[in-house]
Amino acid sequence: MDGASTRNNARRDFYERIDGLSMAPLWESLHQLVPPSPAPKYVPVAWDYDKVRPFLMESGSLITAKEAVRRVLILENPALRGTACTTPTLYAGLQLILPGEVAPSHRHTQSALRFIVEGEGAYTAVDGERTIMHEGDFVITPTWTWHDHGNDSSRPMVWLDGLDIPLVALFNAGFAENGETDEQPITTPPGTSDAKFASGLLPVDWKPTRQTSPIFNYPYARTREALHGLKKAGPPDACHGYKLRYVNPANGGSPMATMGTFMQLLPQGFETAPYRSTDGTVFSVVEGEGESRVGDQVFRWKKRDHFVVPSWARVVHKADSEAVLFSFSDRPVQERLDLWREDRSGR
Amino acid sequence: MDGASTRNNARRDFYERIDGLSMAPLWESLHQLVPPSPAPKYVPVAWDYDKVRPFLMESGSLITAKEAVRRVLILENPALRGTACTTPTLYAGLQLILPGEVAPSHRHTQSALRFIVEGEGAYTAVDGERTIMHEGDFVITPTWTWHDHGNDSSRPMVWLDGLDIPLVALFNAGFAENGETDEQPITTPPGTSDAKFASGLLPVDWKPTRQTSPIFNYPYARTREALHGLKKAGPPDACHGYKLRYVNPANGGSPMATMGTFMQLLPQGFETAPYRSTDGTVFSVVEGEGESRVGDQVFRWKKRDHFVVPSWARVVHKADSEAVLFSFSDRPVQERLDLWREDRSGR
Amino acid sequence: MDGASTRNNARRDFYERIDGLSMAPLWESLHQLVPPSPAPKYVPVAWDYDKVRPFLMESGSLITAKEAVRRVLILENPALRGTACTTPTLYAGLQLILPGEVAPSHRHTQSALRFIVEGEGAYTAVDGERTIMHEGDFVITPTWTWHDHGNDSSRPMVWLDGLDIPLVALFNAGFAENGETDEQPITTPPGTSDAKFASGLLPVDWKPTRQTSPIFNYPYARTREALHGLKKAGPPDACHGYKLRYVNPANGGSPMATMGTFMQLLPQGFETAPYRSTDGTVFSVVEGEGESRVGDQVFRWKKRDHFVVPSWARVVHKADSEAVLFSFSDRPVQERLDLWREDRSGR
Amino acid sequence: MDGASTRNNARRDFYERIDGLSMAPLWESLHQLVPPSPAPKYVPVAWDYDKVRPFLMESGSLITAKEAVRRVLILENPALRGTACTTPTLYAGLQLILPGEVAPSHRHTQSALRFIVEGEGAYTAVDGERTIMHEGDFVITPTWTWHDHGNDSSRPMVWLDGLDIPLVALFNAGFAENGETDEQPITTPPGTSDAKFASGLLPVDWKPTRQTSPIFNYPYARTREALHGLKKAGPPDACHGYKLRYVNPANGGSPMATMGTFMQLLPQGFETAPYRSTDGTVFSVVEGEGESRVGDQVFRWKKRDHFVVPSWARVVHKADSEAVLFSFSDRPVQERLDLWREDRSGR
Repeated sequence: MDGASTRNNARRDFYERIDGLSMAPLWESLHQLVPPSPAPKYVPVAWDYDKVRPFLMESGSLITAKEAVRRVLILENPALRGTACTTPTLYAGLQLILPGEVAPSHRHTQSALRFIVEGEGAYTAVDGERTIMHEGDFVITPTWTWHDHGNDSSRPMVWLDGLDIPLVALFNAGFAENGETDEQPITTPPGTSDAKFASGLLPVDWKPTRQTSPIFNYPYARTREALHGLKKAGPPDACHGYKLRYVNPANGGSPMATMGTFMQLLPQGFETAPYRSTDGTVFSVVEGEGESRVGDQVFRWKKRDHFVVPSWARVVHKADSEAVLFSFSDRPVQERLDLWREDRSGR
Repeated sequence: MDGASTRNNARRDFYERIDGLSMAPLWESLHQLVPPSPAPKYVPVAWDYDKVRPFLMESGSLITAKEAVRRVLILENPALRGTACTTPTLYAGLQLILPGEVAPSHRHTQSALRFIVEGEGAYTAVDGERTIMHEGDFVITPTWTWHDHGNDSSRPMVWLDGLDIPLVALFNAGFAENGETDEQPITTPPGTSDAKFASGLLPVDWKPTRQTSPIFNYPYARTREALHGLKKAGPPDACHGYKLRYVNPANGGSPMATMGTFMQLLPQGFETAPYRSTDGTVFSVVEGEGESRVGDQVFRWKKRDHFVVPSWARVVHKADSEAVLFSFSDRPVQERLDLWREDRSGR
Repeated sequence: MDGASTRNNARRDFYERIDGLSMAPLWESLHQLVPPSPAPKYVPVAWDYDKVRPFLMESGSLITAKEAVRRVLILENPALRGTACTTPTLYAGLQLILPGEVAPSHRHTQSALRFIVEGEGAYTAVDGERTIMHEGDFVITPTWTWHDHGNDSSRPMVWLDGLDIPLVALFNAGFAENGETDEQPITTPPGTSDAKFASGLLPVDWKPTRQTSPIFNYPYARTREALHGLKKAGPPDACHGYKLRYVNPANGGSPMATMGTFMQLLPQGFETAPYRSTDGTVFSVVEGEGESRVGDQVFRWKKRDHFVVPSWARVVHKADSEAVLFSFSDRPVQERLDLWREDRSGR
Repeated sequence: MDGASTRNNARRDFYERIDGLSMAPLWESLHQLVPPSPAPKYVPVAWDYDKVRPFLMESGSLITAKEAVRRVLILENPALRGTACTTPTLYAGLQLILPGEVAPSHRHTQSALRFIVEGEGAYTAVDGERTIMHEGDFVITPTWTWHDHGNDSSRPMVWLDGLDIPLVALFNAGFAENGETDEQPITTPPGTSDAKFASGLLPVDWKPTRQTSPIFNYPYARTREALHGLKKAGPPDACHGYKLRYVNPANGGSPMATMGTFMQLLPQGFETAPYRSTDGTVFSVVEGEGESRVGDQVFRWKKRDHFVVPSWARVVHKADSEAVLFSFSDRPVQERLDLWREDRSGR
């Protein structure tokens, strides 16, 4: 037996002896624990709404919203099956609520976003106030707020749910409670939050107690107008087209502390320069058609399709018609921890 | 001579001898320097627009906007004559710009607010972008931004100017420059700032470099809608009615670091509970009629009138018809220095 | 087949059909994903230094510090074997450096803390400055700083390493580089950081560019004196005894954004009231003897022992002699995300 | 009468007619109100301690500390006589307390600093805790804290008082109260604040409620060591020598919100490059001899002398022996209002 073998055997023997003390040698795994650059274990993936929608509607006949509590098909990353994770920090799913149904009131530590994909007229209630939802609206049900949903319209309504479930799970910091009634008592007229917080002013003595935005519906009509105003104002960003981030007007941060949310317009024929960043991102197509190259894969997309760009995967978007993309990621958390990086070099 | 007289003489003699060294005894003035509660040396005052307007129009024939640089009648506190002060920290004046005139481009350390009192269609330009102004709009020209005004409409236009001139003067921290041309070059289409910053979203990679709001026109249409939304939502505050503060969406603070700006709606017949705070405040009546008791004085007011409530003076507003009041003060500075106090007790 | 079976079969069949689209039903896992309160999957565990130390010394003969890069025995949670995790967000290990050895220079996104367990006289160098380490010193090598260690003393030196490896891994945001030389060039005399940043003053024009503390060695002599000063000043906190948190003097936050670090003194005979919080915590015993009940387990401890209290596990410490405990957790991250909770009720 | 005269007469007549309405034309004073650069109306001035001290001691026989409340000789700016102002925003004075005397307990909105000029052994008490003062110590009695002073030593004690009296006066935001007893009850052992807040750690659950530093004595021994540590570490700054700012460890800001405080070391023979900034500054010489050119004036100075550098006045310091200078100004307020500027160009 040569020196190297002897040494290796001695080490192996050592590893076995320390194993019982719940110890392990760092040097055997250091390189993997502290990699030279991100090497995510999850993958790019897309969901074609034409294929997804029939199943979504079928789910409406298999279980009621009330029995399901939330009737959602999880958009699960193929590399993370069984974990309910779309990215390692984020959960995404498509929720269906049929006319007359109610998704009963509860609250939890996890923050949730709702991005309206199809339909119009259902409501979300948050802490005593309801808002009617329309396609393209971005609605939040922040951490520890009572929330329920109901559909008083005559059509099914579908939205994208985004939650920080994996992140809260990692911290083992989650709590939850069910409401006493399916529909929480309404104490505030609709439109109140919008009047109080979304006009460029705030109530004179209002002091935020949490970091979450006091606006809970960012309507698409307003967002769309902003995108088109931006477009008139100057050339698009090479990597993003015209891209805005949703904001909490009380502090300039993201509407919820754990998730950043974005809306971008790609002019017809525009192709973005290659771009990557450390925040794995879930996209929802709001308008238009086009394709995105994510690492080695190409996803064709149209209105209501969804796809995932993992951390540090290079992405190029190309819009055949003028297109609008909603997206969300954990970027605000990474930024606050000095972790976020981007690469616009294309190399 | 008794002991007290001897002592007093000795002290007086001492004071004279130290005078030449630029020294003085604190104990003779301590109580006045550190008063038990605010004892402002300025007074409540009001300006009736019916009386002010003819002079304002007359000023239009006495000097051009260009020659005056800013053709403004200062609203000077009667107790502070000759200082151009409306309160000890704030300057207010009414500015007139006639059709076809230009108030030439300059910039200065002092921050300015413009609250539109009469007319419609003139513009303010700030750092390369113009905004058209309407009655009730709140427009800012923040510290060290290039700004000019012009009137392309067919009517005279009048606005309230509010500046932090006395505050900057106290710090001896003011700088100013004139522009190379009367009208600064326009580099950005109108509406750009509104699209980029006033929609509840912000450009994805935009980082503020100053504390001033990136929104430079807060239109009255939006503000008014917010006030009426608030009114629908619940009862008025006893001391304020329905009162909002203008906000910088990038940080939740005031649009400019040195001045707080507010808009409040008083329902018809509403009388506020007695209130006082340490921030002396300038009011501009936007809608309605009523009266305000400020200390011992009562001011009747109607649309376009102005009045001043000094620091710690008790105020009661009473609205005969539904009324809307704009106001501004140095409250954000006092709050940041832990100096601001209010008293809602009425005692 | 009854209704329930039929329905279940239909659902099962449905689940299989959507599986190929990378979708799954939320309602089957909702309760587990959003639990009523934290149910961590990791366990309390302790390491007796008497048992650990011989292995640590043996590792010194199996591999050099240079070959290992960092010769560390990972303190791996028994429920998380194979992951190098001590808690789901934190890594802890014991590092040995022998006289004359060097742990070569590198830098990485992950932040590291070093808490000195045994020995004296080795150095840590961070971005061009060295500090000599003594037992009880708390030393940081923050995110993306060049750092290396060397032992110029005549005795082995052991310290506790704490890193945010699992957290950075979850975000897939880690980068790393090796230095050009084993020992980085020294550009700054020892003691410079302490003089510049640890005296209650800061260099007049210094502006922090990261959130990490500019102090990189918090010496035990100073910390110990503070604990004893606290003890003289009043009674201990029921749950914590006398407990301090290390601070970044430039912002009042934690020395590194991702980890909170604490030092507490338990008077002789003192038993803490039951306490739990959502931040799983790693403890290192600095002085004294005692025991801690963590959930259902009791760990006896003495100087240099280590143990883990998982999230939301109830803990009671009892000191036989006056004892000092160092600890670290992810509390500052949880606090910034509005996730952190504690329970002092004992129920 | 020519056109210009006619116009001027018309204007003058107009000014008289608007005068009764408390209005004035801006255009006659605009240039002065918005100057191109700071043109302070206060002047450089110095106080030679050899000349001041006899008067200070004489004041001890003219009035007791108790009768005076605070026996202080105000260092009044020659251009601001009768205002008790040293600069337009700051008050400075020299306070004497004789053995056995007490300066009775009170509190006020104004923040005060005490910089110890001569003597040793007197105490300052703040909110229930006493600290013994030594030459060079920097002690704060922040806004609205109860404070009193007493001299249990056998020698007279003199310190520099610095207060934000003019600033608080401008805002008309000052309140004051006398204590029920001359000496406030002591509830906390001496050294407690130092142990809790000055060690690089903070009590684990302590949350600041004001912006003021929880440290109330920054001892000279520690500050001096820091200056000499800095000196060993590298070359001096061209304009400042080695200059530190005192810091509130809870937020990285100044110990009190309204005043910045600084300590700088000038090596023997060192002459600073010309420098100016917008914060008018009061200096107290702690060690050494030298001279300062302030605008056109030259002040020779030695230990315990004081001098004032007005806003935007150019200053050059020259140290004959190694010298240490304490100074204070309103810089933190100006910085928070985006007003502060400096000029290191020497032009």
